[in-house]
Amino acid sequence: MVTYSAPLDDLRFVLRDLHDYGGRVAALPGCEEATVDLLDAVLEEAARFCENELLPLNQPGDAAGCSLENGVVRTPDGFKEAYRAFREGGWTGLACNPEYGGQGLPKTLQFLVSEIICSTNLSFGVYPGLSHGAYHLLERCASDEQKATFLPNLANGTWSGTMCLTEPQCGTDLGLVRTKAEPAEDGTYKITGTKIFISAGEHDLTDNIVHLVLAKLPDAPPGIKGISLFIVPKFLVDADGGLGARNGVVCGGLEDKMGIKASATCVLNFDAAEGTLVGARHSGLRAMFTMMNMARLTVGLQGLGLAETAYQSAVAYARERLQGRALSGPAHPDKPADPIIVHPGVRGDLMTMRALTEGARALAFWVALELDRAERHPDPLERQAADDLVALLTPLVKAALTDIGFDVANLGVQIFGGHGYIRDNGMEQLVRDARIAQIYEGTNGIQALDLVGRKLVQDYGRPLRRFFHPVREFLEANQTNPELAEFVQPLAKVFGRLQRATLWLAQKGLSDPEEAGAAAGDYLRLFSHTAFAYLWARTAEVSFARADGLAPEFYDAKLATARFFMQRILPQSSGLFAAIMAGKGPTMALDAEAF
Amino acid sequence: MVTYSAPLDDLRFVLRDLHDYGGRVAALPGCEEATVDLLDAVLEEAARFCENELLPLNQPGDAAGCSLENGVVRTPDGFKEAYRAFREGGWTGLACNPEYGGQGLPKTLQFLVSEIICSTNLSFGVYPGLSHGAYHLLERCASDEQKATFLPNLANGTWSGTMCLTEPQCGTDLGLVRTKAEPAEDGTYKITGTKIFISAGEHDLTDNIVHLVLAKLPDAPPGIKGISLFIVPKFLVDADGGLGARNGVVCGGLEDKMGIKASATCVLNFDAAEGTLVGARHSGLRAMFTMMNMARLTVGLQGLGLAETAYQSAVAYARERLQGRALSGPAHPDKPADPIIVHPGVRGDLMTMRALTEGARALAFWVALELDRAERHPDPLERQAADDLVALLTPLVKAALTDIGFDVANLGVQIFGGHGYIRDNGMEQLVRDARIAQIYEGTNGIQALDLVGRKLVQDYGRPLRRFFHPVREFLEANQTNPELAEFVQPLAKVFGRLQRATLWLAQKGLSDPEEAGAAAGDYLRLFSHTAFAYLWARTAEVSFARADGLAPEFYDAKLATARFFMQRILPQSSGLFAAIMAGKGPTMALDAEAF
Repeated sequence: MVTYSAPLDDLRFVLRDLHDYGGRVAALPGCEEATVDLLDAVLEEAARFCENELLPLNQPGDAAGCSLENGVVRTPDGFKEAYRAFREGGWTGLACNPEYGGQGLPKTLQFLVSEIICSTNLSFGVYPGLSHGAYHLLERCASDEQKATFLPNLANGTWSGTMCLTEPQCGTDLGLVRTKAEPAEDGTYKITGTKIFISAGEHDLTDNIVHLVLAKLPDAPPGIKGISLFIVPKFLVDADGGLGARNGVVCGGLEDKMGIKASATCVLNFDAAEGTLVGARHSGLRAMFTMMNMARLTVGLQGLGLAETAYQSAVAYARERLQGRALSGPAHPDKPADPIIVHPGVRGDLMTMRALTEGARALAFWVALELDRAERHPDPLERQAADDLVALLTPLVKAALTDIGFDVANLGVQIFGGHGYIRDNGMEQLVRDARIAQIYEGTNGIQALDLVGRKLVQDYGRPLRRFFHPVREFLEANQTNPELAEFVQPLAKVFGRLQRATLWLAQKGLSDPEEAGAAAGDYLRLFSHTAFAYLWARTAEVSFARADGLAPEFYDAKLATARFFMQRILPQSSGLFAAIMAGKGPTMALDAEAF
Repeated sequence: MVTYSAPLDDLRFVLRDLHDYGGRVAALPGCEEATVDLLDAVLEEAARFCENELLPLNQPGDAAGCSLENGVVRTPDGFKEAYRAFREGGWTGLACNPEYGGQGLPKTLQFLVSEIICSTNLSFGVYPGLSHGAYHLLERCASDEQKATFLPNLANGTWSGTMCLTEPQCGTDLGLVRTKAEPAEDGTYKITGTKIFISAGEHDLTDNIVHLVLAKLPDAPPGIKGISLFIVPKFLVDADGGLGARNGVVCGGLEDKMGIKASATCVLNFDAAEGTLVGARHSGLRAMFTMMNMARLTVGLQGLGLAETAYQSAVAYARERLQGRALSGPAHPDKPADPIIVHPGVRGDLMTMRALTEGARALAFWVALELDRAERHPDPLERQAADDLVALLTPLVKAALTDIGFDVANLGVQIFGGHGYIRDNGMEQLVRDARIAQIYEGTNGIQALDLVGRKLVQDYGRPLRRFFHPVREFLEANQTNPELAEFVQPLAKVFGRLQRATLWLAQKGLSDPEEAGAAAGDYLRLFSHTAFAYLWARTAEVSFARADGLAPEFYDAKLATARFFMQRILPQSSGLFAAIMAGKGPTMALDAEAF
C-alpha cells in the first residue's frame, strides 16, 4: 500500500527555479559536465533504479531483518543483488574524486540521489551512506598511502565503511571512550575494545569493510583531547592492495531494533585488531566531526525521503478509501461513499504533510548547493560564506527534517486508520524507520545545543548573518509588493521573533549557559520555522514568476501550499517564542531528586 | 530498563484532594462501601498485582506475540496464568452489578485499576477491557434472558467479550456494513460475513467468547439506520447455561501489527453463526455507541498509563546514565561524567512528560467521577449535569490523552537515545503500543468531529456550559488572588481564546460544515489546553492549601509542574487559535485532484 514515484517535478523546481542550480552550481569550476541536463538524467535514472530495485525490497527487508551466525551477518534476500547493481550503476562513486575512480559530480546530485534512496529503502541506504562518509573523511584526513589503498575501493563500492564511535558507556560524550590502541613495532596499532550501535558493522554486501575507529593511545590525555582515529579493515590489505588475513574484529551481536531492520546494527569486538593511525595522534575527534557534519545532513535527507513516501502513500489511500460523505453533501453520489480526501480533517493532514515535506526539500537542497559552493567556488570569500551557512543550517537540517520525517510518517499512518497499524501495509514501517533519524548522528537535542552553543557564537556571529542578511534583503525588497504581502508579512513577524529570541539568548546565554540549554530545543524549532517561512515566501515569489517549464497547476499548487504553511503551521512560532522567553526558571525549578 | 511503580501519591491527590472523591463519589447511594479507605486498598492491591504479575509479561509478550494454528489462537506464555489470577482476584467484576456477581464499586475505581493495567501491560488489558465494554452494553440493552445468560460469566471473567464492527470496506462509516443476519424459525438469526480488526476475537484465556456483532437484516434500510446488533457466542449456550456446540465463527487470521502484539487482533469469519438480537431491529448502532463512549474513555486511559511508564522510565534512566557535564560545571566531579538529568534539554523533556501525564490524569479522573455521578446521583438534574460533562469531555479524553501517550512515549525514547531504539530496553514498545490508541475506537480526527459536530451543538450548547461555567466561576473567584495570579492569568487568556473560537465555530460552522471540519482538530487541541490549564490552576489552588496528608515536597512539585505547564506548554494555544481562525480556505484550496 506504499505508493512512491520520485517527485521529479518538485526536485527540478527546488533545484532549478528556487535555488538556481544552473547558475550557482553548474557554473562552478569542475562542474562543467554537471549541467542542468545531466541533473535531469541523474534524477530520472536514480528514480528508475530506486523505484524498481530498492522499493520492492523495503518491506520484505523489514520483515526478514538481518541475521548473525558464527560472526557472519546476512542481509535480507535481494540486498546483495541490489547492492551489486547499485555499485555497477556507478552510484557509489557519484560525488567521489575522479582521481580515485569517482565521477566527480557535485554533492547536490549526491543529495538528490540520497533523498530518493531514503524514500524507497532507508535500510539499504545506510550501507552506501556510511561508505560515503568514510570516503570523505579519509579523503580529507588520511595519508596518501592510506588514500591510495582505501579510496578507490570505497568509491567503486567493492569495500564499505563504518564509523565506530559509540561504546556501551558513551554515546554523546566521546570523552569516555575506553577502546585502546597499542603501538606495534611496525608502526601499526593494536586496537582492543567494544563498539556498539555500529551501522553496517558487518554484512555480506562488500568484499571488505573499512572501520574508522576512535580509540585512545596509552599516553592519551583524558577526555575528548585524547582520542585518536584509526583505520581497521575487516580484512588486512596486502602491499599490492589485495586482501590478506582476517583482522581481529568480529561482530558479537546484532541489535533487534524498532526499525531499519534490514540495516545491520552491530556490536563489534576488537581484539588486538591491526589498525593504522589517521592524521595526528589525539586529534581523532576533529577528523570524525568532519565526517559527522556530512552525515548529519544525510540523516536529514532520511527524514525528507520518508516524509515524501508517507505523503504520496497517504494521498493515494485518501483518494481510494471510500468512507462517509463529504460534509457539504455527497461528492460521489454514484459510489457507496466518498473518498476520504473530501473530509477537511484529512485534507488538513495532507496539506500539513505536503507543506512540511516540500519545505524540508527546499531547505535540504539550499544547504546542498552551498556545500558545493563551499568546496568549489574560486573566490575564498564566497567559499567562506557558503561554509558558514552550511555550518549554521546543518543542525536545522538534521533536527527539523528528521522531526518532519517522523511527524509526517505518523500522519500517514493516521490517514490509513487501523490499516496503517498493520505491518503488511507498510505505513507503520515508515514511522519505525523514521524514529532512528531523530536519534543517531547526535540526537536532535544535541543538534539544538550545537546551534545555540556553537554555531550562534562562532566567529562573532558571522554564520548567523549569512542567514539573517538574505532574509532581511528579501523582506526589504518585497515590503511593498502587494502580490507577496500575504507571505512577506508572516515572514517578517516570525523573523522578528527569531531576532528577539537570538538577542535574548546572546545576553542570557553568555552569563548562564543553562539559559541557553533550556531554550535550545524551542530556539531550533523557531529558527526552522523562520527558514521554512523564508523558503516558502521565496517559493511564492518564484511561483508567481513561473520561471521554468512546469505546468501552471504546479505553480498554483505551490502557492496554495505556501498559504497553508503561513496560515496554519507558522502560527506555532508564537508559542515557541513564548516558551523561549519564559527562561530556564520553570524548566529547572524542580530538583533532580524531586522527579 | 522499563521502570514502573504505580503513582499512588498522585492518584490519591487527584482523586481525593483535587476531585473530592470522598464527598462526590463515596457519598453517592450504593457507594457506601466505596470509602476513601477502600479506594486506598484497591489502589495498593491493583498496584501489587499489576507490578508483579503483568509488568514482567509485557516485554516477553511483545517479543512472542500471539499465534494462530487451525483456528486456535494462543496468547504468549504466562498470559493464561496471569488472567486466571486476575479473574480470581475479582478484578473482572469490580464495577459490575452485584445482581450479576459483580462488586458494584464505582467506575472511578475501575478507571484507577485500568490506568495501572495499561501502564504495566496494555496488550493484556485489552482482553478484560473488551469484556467490560460488552458487559456494560448488555446490561443496558439486552433482554433479561440474555442478561441472565451472559452477564454473570462476563462479570466473573470466565467468558470474555468482543465488539465486531469493522469490515474490510468499513471502519468509521458503519453504514457500509455488509454482514448479514437471516432470521431463523426459532427466533434466532444466522449471521454471515467477515469482520476484521477484532480485538480479543479469539484467544485461550476464557471458556467462551461473546461476540457483539453488527449486521444487517434482510429488510434493513440502507446506511446506519439499517444496522442491528447480535450476540454471537463462540460456543452456543444450553438452556441450563452450559456450553454447547461450537458456533459458526472462526478466526481466519491474526494481524501482524506495529504494537500491542500480545493482544490478538483477529479476522473473524461468520458462516451462518447463530445469534440473538439485542434490543430492537435496526437500532444496533445506538446500542453500540453506548459501549463505545465508555470504550473511548478507556482508550484515553491507555494513553495515560503508557505516558506514566515512559515518564518513570525516563527519569530513572536520566538519573543513572552518565554522559557529559552540566553546563554550569561538573555536578558530580567524583564521577566520570554527570547524569544526563543535569542537562536543561533533558530536564525540559522530563518536565513536559510530567506536566502532560499528571494533567492527563487530572482530566481522566474528573470524567470518571462524573460518570459515577451521572449513574448514581439521586437528583436527576445532577445526573444530567454529570452526563453532559462526560459527553462533552469524552472526545477530549480519548484524543488528547492518546496523543499525550504517544508523545510522552516518544520523549521517553529520545531520553534513552540509541538505547531507546533497541527492543530489549522496552521503551520503543511503549511508542508502538501507544500508537494504536490514537486510531481505534474512532480515530482522533473522528473525536474532533464528535466534539465539534455533535457535542458542541447538542441541547443548544448545554454540555458546553457544564465546562464553561466552572471555569468562569473559578476565574471570578480567584481574579484578585495574588497567590494564584500566575495560574489564573494564563487560564483566563486561553479560556478567552476558546470562547472566541467557539463563537466563531458556532457562526461559521452552522452555515458551512466544512468550516467546522477544517477547524475541528485544532479546536479539540485548544479545548484540551484549556481543560489542562483549568485543572493545573485548580491543582495549584489545592497545592497551596496542602489539604491532605501528602508530603510538602509533593505539593511543591505540583506547583513547579503547574508553572512549567503554564509557561512552557500552554503558549502553544496561541498557534492553535490562529490556525482555527484562518478558516477552511487554506485547507481546502487545493483540489483533491491536485495532490
